[in-house]
Amino acid sequence: MSTNQNTDTIYGINPKTGDRLDPGFPAADAARVDALVADAVAAYQRYRATSGPDRADLLREIAMQIEALGDELITVCDAETALGPVRIASERGRTVNQLRMFADLVEEGSWVDARIDTAIPDRKPLPKPDIRRMLAPVGPVVVFGASNFPLAFSVAGGDSASALAAGNPVIVKAHGSHPGTSALVGRAVSAAVAQCGLPAGVFAVVHGPGSVVGSALVKHPGVRAVGFTGSRGGGRALMDLAAARKAPIPVYAEMGSINPLIVLPHAVAHRGVAIAEGLAGSVCLGVGQFCTNPGLILAVEPAGSEAAPADSVSSGGAAANPGTAGATAAFVSRLAATMEAQGPGVMLNRSIASTYCEMVARFASAHGVVTHTGARSQDAGGCAPSQPDGAGATQAAGAGPDGYATVHPALFSVSADVFVQSPLLAQEVFGPATLVVRCADATDVTRCLAVIGGNLTATFHGDDEDFAGYADLVRVVEQTVGRVIFNGFPTGVEVCASMTHGGPYPASASEFHTSVGTGAILRFARPVSYQNCPPPLLPAEPQDANPRGITRIVNGAYSRDPVA
Amino acid sequence: MSTNQNTDTIYGINPKTGDRLDPGFPAADAARVDALVADAVAAYQRYRATSGPDRADLLREIAMQIEALGDELITVCDAETALGPVRIASERGRTVNQLRMFADLVEEGSWVDARIDTAIPDRKPLPKPDIRRMLAPVGPVVVFGASNFPLAFSVAGGDSASALAAGNPVIVKAHGSHPGTSALVGRAVSAAVAQCGLPAGVFAVVHGPGSVVGSALVKHPGVRAVGFTGSRGGGRALMDLAAARKAPIPVYAEMGSINPLIVLPHAVAHRGVAIAEGLAGSVCLGVGQFCTNPGLILAVEPAGSEAAPADSVSSGGAAANPGTAGATAAFVSRLAATMEAQGPGVMLNRSIASTYCEMVARFASAHGVVTHTGARSQDAGGCAPSQPDGAGATQAAGAGPDGYATVHPALFSVSADVFVQSPLLAQEVFGPATLVVRCADATDVTRCLAVIGGNLTATFHGDDEDFAGYADLVRVVEQTVGRVIFNGFPTGVEVCASMTHGGPYPASASEFHTSVGTGAILRFARPVSYQNCPPPLLPAEPQDANPRGITRIVNGAYSRDPVA
Repeated sequence: MSTNQNTDTIYGINPKTGDRLDPGFPAADAARVDALVADAVAAYQRYRATSGPDRADLLREIAMQIEALGDELITVCDAETALGPVRIASERGRTVNQLRMFADLVEEGSWVDARIDTAIPDRKPLPKPDIRRMLAPVGPVVVFGASNFPLAFSVAGGDSASALAAGNPVIVKAHGSHPGTSALVGRAVSAAVAQCGLPAGVFAVVHGPGSVVGSALVKHPGVRAVGFTGSRGGGRALMDLAAARKAPIPVYAEMGSINPLIVLPHAVAHRGVAIAEGLAGSVCLGVGQFCTNPGLILAVEPAGSEAAPADSVSSGGAAANPGTAGATAAFVSRLAATMEAQGPGVMLNRSIASTYCEMVARFASAHGVVTHTGARSQDAGGCAPSQPDGAGATQAAGAGPDGYATVHPALFSVSADVFVQSPLLAQEVFGPATLVVRCADATDVTRCLAVIGGNLTATFHGDDEDFAGYADLVRVVEQTVGRVIFNGFPTGVEVCASMTHGGPYPASASEFHTSVGTGAILRFARPVSYQNCPPPLLPAEPQDANPRGITRIVNGAYSRDPVA
Repeated sequence: MSTNQNTDTIYGINPKTGDRLDPGFPAADAARVDALVADAVAAYQRYRATSGPDRADLLREIAMQIEALGDELITVCDAETALGPVRIASERGRTVNQLRMFADLVEEGSWVDARIDTAIPDRKPLPKPDIRRMLAPVGPVVVFGASNFPLAFSVAGGDSASALAAGNPVIVKAHGSHPGTSALVGRAVSAAVAQCGLPAGVFAVVHGPGSVVGSALVKHPGVRAVGFTGSRGGGRALMDLAAARKAPIPVYAEMGSINPLIVLPHAVAHRGVAIAEGLAGSVCLGVGQFCTNPGLILAVEPAGSEAAPADSVSSGGAAANPGTAGATAAFVSRLAATMEAQGPGVMLNRSIASTYCEMVARFASAHGVVTHTGARSQDAGGCAPSQPDGAGATQAAGAGPDGYATVHPALFSVSADVFVQSPLLAQEVFGPATLVVRCADATDVTRCLAVIGGNLTATFHGDDEDFAGYADLVRVVEQTVGRVIFNGFPTGVEVCASMTHGGPYPASASEFHTSVGTGAILRFARPVSYQNCPPPLLPAEPQDANPRGITRIVNGAYSRDPVA
């Protein structure tokens, strides 16, 4: 059994079996990193001068080339990730749709936020000059592929698509979990770059350990911005490296989240079963490997409900909504049963599965925590995915001969009083686990939110009767997240203009940005102003005639008209 | 003679005399910092909920309260800064105009970039949810007052105005050079806050050493963003502190610049005299104490010109344009004469004047540098402002009994070959000094630009005949700056929607932002999305009816219409 870290050759590992996947891919050395960045810097001079329609052509060609990879991409990706052909095909669809969304955005062109203030030569005491500005590409961007989105947030994913759309060359550091997938998609992108007659330096994929190759890229003076999706530790390490550069650059790190889901009393009493069943699907979707996985459920007990001690609730409770009495207990019971019914799943790699099992064991043995499914409280410390031991369905990992990265869903509950005093319980468990906190009221919810820091999302399940009393809580919650969801689930991030996928630290490095949706392009462009610029020297977008036909702000007003 | 650093009481010092100015202002201690931030955090809950028109009322009231300070403000500020009543009155005008500009911006309201994607319930394979987003205030902002703009970039300057406009409480760390001015303006702002019925925690001014009070504010977990205008050393120190926080925050540091000005051959041959005279005014304006002061002149010698050795040129050259022959030499000569004619000036404080004189002395004694005016080459090391020694007009500092912070303009020249090998010469000399680099062609200009890093501005002086051959250079230069100016001068930053005042590091901490103009508000607001939000819980801006009447992006198109 080989490892894919700290070696000269990077191999994928089949997470179902632990088998090494050929071929291997050479890890870059320092000279290779230098050469790639030099190529990107050189290509930038030509690529930054391309028009929006030119870049749209490239993005659409990339989408076509990825589609042309056909079943090979599905097969290779499934072998490396165990995500399954259906999910992978769906993710491929999202990936090419994202590319085409950015193609449409830059073809239309208004995203450059062009602004024109025309001259007032006779203004007193000083003449007003003519000033025009627009957003321009910043320079070479490094993108780190994500383990959990081998297509949609890796080589040709949202970070790459938005950086290319803005006019920047991209160098992708392939994730070590799916080097074959990365190489295939990289080949498709490079074919598209060649097809469009652009210099090869516009795009590159590089393999190697993040601690070596990734660090070298982030520290390289030719690199101007970084996109990252992954763990908090990895993201923070890159942020620190970038901040320590002679010329610091932004790292747009999206670092996961526990995504609190707040179940309000009327909702839990009247449709707790449906919420529990939907929630179980969201927690277990893709073996829980989503940044928006709901890892914390703040359940507000209905007034007048007699709260049953949670540890007295048996798994597999009744399907009927319980009404007010014991509503939270019934909700937890139904959630446990539905999660348990999902059965085991194979995680992306052994390291992720091991970490999941360690965290599950730590939760299970923590003071005041009740385990409803998924962990053996007797042997919490021994829950490692590499130890097939024939144990039953209530352990979190390690069943049978396919146990290399196999895990089970896990559900815990705890009181609000215990939760707010347990830093461990506010940590993300990456995988199909969640924790219900039993809250008495809005004050308990606020106390819990105060200890968890920033998140990508927060979700409310509530009825009109709930929101009459909890509207203020919405205003509190929106300060801690990038997206507030009502009566839905946070998994499934719509790719559109209105999406915010980001949030206060530690959810992301910059709460001022989104990594999903058209707004993601703003991470990779900077404003440039031109004062009294001779018309032949102006870029197209701020020219009087508005040859690109874009919406601009002219002397303070939105307009698509030429400047008179 | 007292100092205003590292004491419990901060006093202003008259830079003309060195006399201490009463009253003193108590430096904050750690408890005071904690209390101020706690007040700001509490006030944020109320202030963030105010409407755009509410905030417009506050900003306009602040402007009125500042105007109501009347002559006292001018008198106090002039005593502390020596900028003179005319300049201070003008800067007060800019300050209140900025406040009113942001009032207009948030009253109109479209700056929140509201976006609406309506639901498609029957979309396959998954329904599309309703998603709406807008920019929301980020939380308490700390602003560091600038030495060189005691009004327009201090207590109620651009950083404060934009942060307040976005809906954030502001705590200003007053600059130690003008504590009395800061206290007066702070009083005006707090009066406006009270007048508008807002909690006092919306705004505070605090005094004390930056290394103590400033650091404590930047490190405080309740603070969410920082605005700074000042030295590179000071800005970088704050950036490093903010990056090392448990939850890092952005420091929008604007750190000055050498602002290259490129004089192209046809222009220098045919109107070199006019350019030299305008340039001398820009270099010496406000004793050179502007971030946009042109500190580097890249003069391209006309083809066929016989370049006279620059050290053979006497000061006070002929007024006539020289034509092609010796055009650069004549330009330098005229520039020297005009700068010399400006005479001495009093800088903002003794520390700034001392640093200026040290830098002038280092330039004067550097290899290959010719001094045209402003430094005694025989005694370059002795040019300290505190040593009145009766020396003549060609020394950079220290003339007569008013010599406490008095300095003289300084002009140097050097070859491109020497410049690109002298890191010293690429450093900013804050004050009325500039350096002419004799360039043979565009290649020389590009070589010089490559060694100086990012700048706030670059300026071209050129005619149509020049730009026919130098258009590519414009595309290179725009990559290194936030603003490109043609046939003008970089000092005098227009406050408008199209302005970019910022640039690649080290000009500013984030080249993605501007600190001047309406775009400055984007530094202090972050996107928040609402998914399937019950209409009563939505903020006003993304509601169907568009009650604020703003321009939004609805299903991909700009619109001011209600959502049907």
